[in-house]
Amino acid sequence: MAEHIVTSFDADLELLRSRIAEMGGIAEKQLDDSTRALVRRDVALAQQVIDADSRLDSLQREIEELAVATIARRQPVAVDLRDIISAIRVAGDVERIGDLAKNTAKRVLAISSELQPAKIVGGVQHMSDLVQEQLKDVLDAYAQRDEKKALEVWNRDDRIDALYNSVFRELLTYMMEDTRNITFCTHLLFLAKNIERIGDHTTNIAETIYFLTTGETLAGERPKGDTTSFATTPAV
Amino acid sequence: MAEHIVTSFDADLELLRSRIAEMGGIAEKQLDDSTRALVRRDVALAQQVIDADSRLDSLQREIEELAVATIARRQPVAVDLRDIISAIRVAGDVERIGDLAKNTAKRVLAISSELQPAKIVGGVQHMSDLVQEQLKDVLDAYAQRDEKKALEVWNRDDRIDALYNSVFRELLTYMMEDTRNITFCTHLLFLAKNIERIGDHTTNIAETIYFLTTGETLAGERPKGDTTSFATTPAV
Repeated sequence: MAEHIVTSFDADLELLRSRIAEMGGIAEKQLDDSTRALVRRDVALAQQVIDADSRLDSLQREIEELAVATIARRQPVAVDLRDIISAIRVAGDVERIGDLAKNTAKRVLAISSELQPAKIVGGVQHMSDLVQEQLKDVLDAYAQRDEKKALEVWNRDDRIDALYNSVFRELLTYMMEDTRNITFCTHLLFLAKNIERIGDHTTNIAETIYFLTTGETLAGERPKGDTTSFATTPAV
Repeated sequence: MAEHIVTSFDADLELLRSRIAEMGGIAEKQLDDSTRALVRRDVALAQQVIDADSRLDSLQREIEELAVATIARRQPVAVDLRDIISAIRVAGDVERIGDLAKNTAKRVLAISSELQPAKIVGGVQHMSDLVQEQLKDVLDAYAQRDEKKALEVWNRDDRIDALYNSVFRELLTYMMEDTRNITFCTHLLFLAKNIERIGDHTTNIAETIYFLTTGETLAGERPKGDTTSFATTPAV
């Protein structure tokens, strides 16, 4: 239909927003499903997470192409230009979140046959709950262009890092207690790191929202609480 | 001086290129230094790597701001627009490479007092050598807008993934052999993963070069050889 060929700039932006909302919904589900697959040892659910990732990849490509075409056609400036640049950035972060959930799901498949004391998984599950809340809030903040809410997410990332540090030390302890835990705990270490990195991507999105709404870069260092790079011997 | 206020579009592009070349040079040095710090247990060199990262962060911000200002002022289309979008993408990947080198350096500090059988570090050093070559080649390909060279880098990433898989299994074996190796080997696992991820960023840059020179997205799945997500018990 001919009337759909000529679109307004607002319609271009609306299309970008709806595509990003779609990506966000998929990524939230990916994170939730990958964690449930871990806790329930649900191999079929893990496989679903792996299979669903390609949709995120194609949506990201579509958003990038649409964004570049919109800049070329509309030549936007100021906040309109930031809106499009922000869409590219947010799509990139959400796509990476999906990749990390997919990697988590792959590890669930790997460890499905391993000895899995339930208490070992508890810390990772708690991390995932916190990160899911952060992801939901930052996607809402993006949809509402709410930099106050974005700043709250940005400031709350240290809770996840603190929990990651304690999970990291706990897992090292389990490995030292019983070498039969090593393979399983190694996968859990990477899995916990994936979730911590998803948290980092939510703070990236919060920074993008701040840039979009204010035109300025968030001042100061992002609160970084992952100190496991410095971790030596855990308290066994 | 007034004549410098009004610049041409070519001068804007030249400035972007020179800033990215500067970032690339720093990232290459960061990767090389962090690996030498690991092999030589050089704590002072590791600290240098950590301190140098802020320069990469500020260069990335400068490039992004310059890119957005250039789009707003020049309203470029086609290859000129792709040139600027590509600069934003490449700067993002190089900044992440610097972050990963910094994380490696932090881990070097953490394990400097641990028992370190030299043979355990060998695999990681070899990985780093391969990735350094990839990084150098892809930065050259970007400077020369050489998509053939970029494709070579893209296709060679599987060598790094294969090596990472063998290092991963080797480290699990050392952990099972002697629980005193667990803390050290856990850091080396993450360190090896960092280097593997730097390799992924070089393939991202290769994809950007292809997009820049051809206007098209690289078809097909990127060669992914990291199968450690699926790794179960290593061959002890």
